[in-house]
Amino acid sequence: MKPVTVYDIAKEANVSVATVSRVLNNTAPVKKSTRDRIVELMNKYQFQPNALARSLSKKETGMIGIILPDITNPFFPTVLAGFEQEARNKGYTFFLCDTVSTNGDSKEQYERESQYLGLLMEKQVDGIVMIGGRINLARPSEAMVSEVVDISKRVPTLLINGNLPGQNIHSVCVDEREGAELATQHLIDLGHRDIGFAGGYQSMANTLQRVQGFVKTMEKNGLKIRREWILDGGFTVEKGKLFMNYLLRMPERPTALFCANDLVAIGALKAAYNAGLRVPQDLSLVGFDDVPYASNSIPELTTVSLKCYDIGKYAAEQLHKMITKSKVSKKTKIRPELVIRESTAPPNVSGSKGPN
Amino acid sequence: MKPVTVYDIAKEANVSVATVSRVLNNTAPVKKSTRDRIVELMNKYQFQPNALARSLSKKETGMIGIILPDITNPFFPTVLAGFEQEARNKGYTFFLCDTVSTNGDSKEQYERESQYLGLLMEKQVDGIVMIGGRINLARPSEAMVSEVVDISKRVPTLLINGNLPGQNIHSVCVDEREGAELATQHLIDLGHRDIGFAGGYQSMANTLQRVQGFVKTMEKNGLKIRREWILDGGFTVEKGKLFMNYLLRMPERPTALFCANDLVAIGALKAAYNAGLRVPQDLSLVGFDDVPYASNSIPELTTVSLKCYDIGKYAAEQLHKMITKSKVSKKTKIRPELVIRESTAPPNVSGSKGPN
Repeated sequence: MKPVTVYDIAKEANVSVATVSRVLNNTAPVKKSTRDRIVELMNKYQFQPNALARSLSKKETGMIGIILPDITNPFFPTVLAGFEQEARNKGYTFFLCDTVSTNGDSKEQYERESQYLGLLMEKQVDGIVMIGGRINLARPSEAMVSEVVDISKRVPTLLINGNLPGQNIHSVCVDEREGAELATQHLIDLGHRDIGFAGGYQSMANTLQRVQGFVKTMEKNGLKIRREWILDGGFTVEKGKLFMNYLLRMPERPTALFCANDLVAIGALKAAYNAGLRVPQDLSLVGFDDVPYASNSIPELTTVSLKCYDIGKYAAEQLHKMITKSKVSKKTKIRPELVIRESTAPPNVSGSKGPN
Repeated sequence: MKPVTVYDIAKEANVSVATVSRVLNNTAPVKKSTRDRIVELMNKYQFQPNALARSLSKKETGMIGIILPDITNPFFPTVLAGFEQEARNKGYTFFLCDTVSTNGDSKEQYERESQYLGLLMEKQVDGIVMIGGRINLARPSEAMVSEVVDISKRVPTLLINGNLPGQNIHSVCVDEREGAELATQHLIDLGHRDIGFAGGYQSMANTLQRVQGFVKTMEKNGLKIRREWILDGGFTVEKGKLFMNYLLRMPERPTALFCANDLVAIGALKAAYNAGLRVPQDLSLVGFDDVPYASNSIPELTTVSLKCYDIGKYAAEQLHKMITKSKVSKKTKIRPELVIRESTAPPNVSGSKGPN
């Protein structure tokens, strides 16, 4: 039998859920006749308050904070969607703390993280999730690290796809190195020998892991790594265009490009198209993340799925376990998956030189 | 002179913002020497707590709730980004309440709106913003309307791009009808006579307004509206593909298609491409919204900008005025803008028949 929920009670009593909740938790006055009707229904169905209702009636605030770097990067909304679904099931509402700096200043971004960490502590949230930002830095400052460590001792704190050097904070991570290995091996299996890597920031751990996976796989296959084909400097479509245009001006260009994320791949695709190159006939492209863009472009992008939705879902599950003091593993590692679509093909040998 | 903020104080005292905030609001113990150093700096700079600090020290919770239908639709993250920027400036943190139903059940979605409205009232938020969902329904049920009206009497409530029939709740809206008129007139000016409309739900007010703008402009220009070229049923890329494939099977198809949003246009573009049609040579496409997708596709989409970021920003400004009981207009109307890119061109007369 399906358990009776506050919604069922509200519906049958012909009142709002808020009214049922008020009766349940005694947080605000409700007209006596209404209250009686609700209590009667609760008794009739032997109503068990669910997690949501329980959290409202308990000392916990039922509030979580999630700190992320930029909600307009489509990676994050997908993570959030999975997170929200599970968090709501468990009875939490969450603060969205977007730390994006309008002028792209990363220092300002890290300050905003501090600001939000402070605010979330003030609001007495039950737990905090961090994704992106300082936890992706290869070398965060000591102050940045100790601030998070300090907070993680006072309130359950979970990191998604990141870490802090030398620390052992709870995390849910996708193996980015493995993802990069899958992508690189796929290109090599297609017959590519001249492969470049474009995008990300090598000051960030997530980029380093992807580059390391790329380099390791190239070396394992006895292939030469051309340093001039490893391009650093951003995660946006605009940067992808710049990287591609830069490669196109070289006397020799790679036959395949592994991009640090899907947005960079989309930018590279556009620049290649504008230069008259066909993808995948003249150039193979692989993205990373598998955001919705990847399957909506023409041609559709071959990419590495970071299982964004699942990450969000696991994160909410793990955090709930931490909040309720259930047994929970420190690190949850999720395996990435290669998604082969239309932007990769065997190399066209005549296309491996410059556009002339 | 730039006013001194909690961040300046924190920096100079070499402590976190949270510590300054604790001293300011006396919410948690701080080591005496640290406290003294902070208080000294506050005196030195004649520090005025900003909105953030003030809201922490006052009775207001500094919390806002924003209820939206689906964070993975790229329209909403852009609105949120503008909203967040301004809300943070004004000292608010916000709950993100995503009401998406995993099985696409709209009834469940409206129930989740009720659930979140109740939750936000329990959390004693300072204000509520609603976007999408029931406020877009052409005919919401009486219960749905009265629930929102009731809440709007108790806590400042602002609707973005929506309304409730017969009600006068504060709102920030883009003139969707005008947007549709701009798009349609652009196609007519290019020489198109056979124009279709695809996407949205005609049970929703926002779709009706777009269709009405389309129909009005066609009639004003003495053009015939072909009912079989007005396709209803969704806002997704997948639906866009279905609409296009449906049109392609007709004995006669339009030379231009005005799509209810950019995602539908992207789907139509993909289906047209797969059928061997060139956009814009064989078919012109116009989107609506101007989400980042629109400028990242090949060809880039001509579309109507709904100024998503600005809407979010204005919404936060308006809500703050309502919360602080400042003078505020009931309706803020924002004008849309036609953005001409690469997906529209004069019609190719030989391409106006079926693909055979």
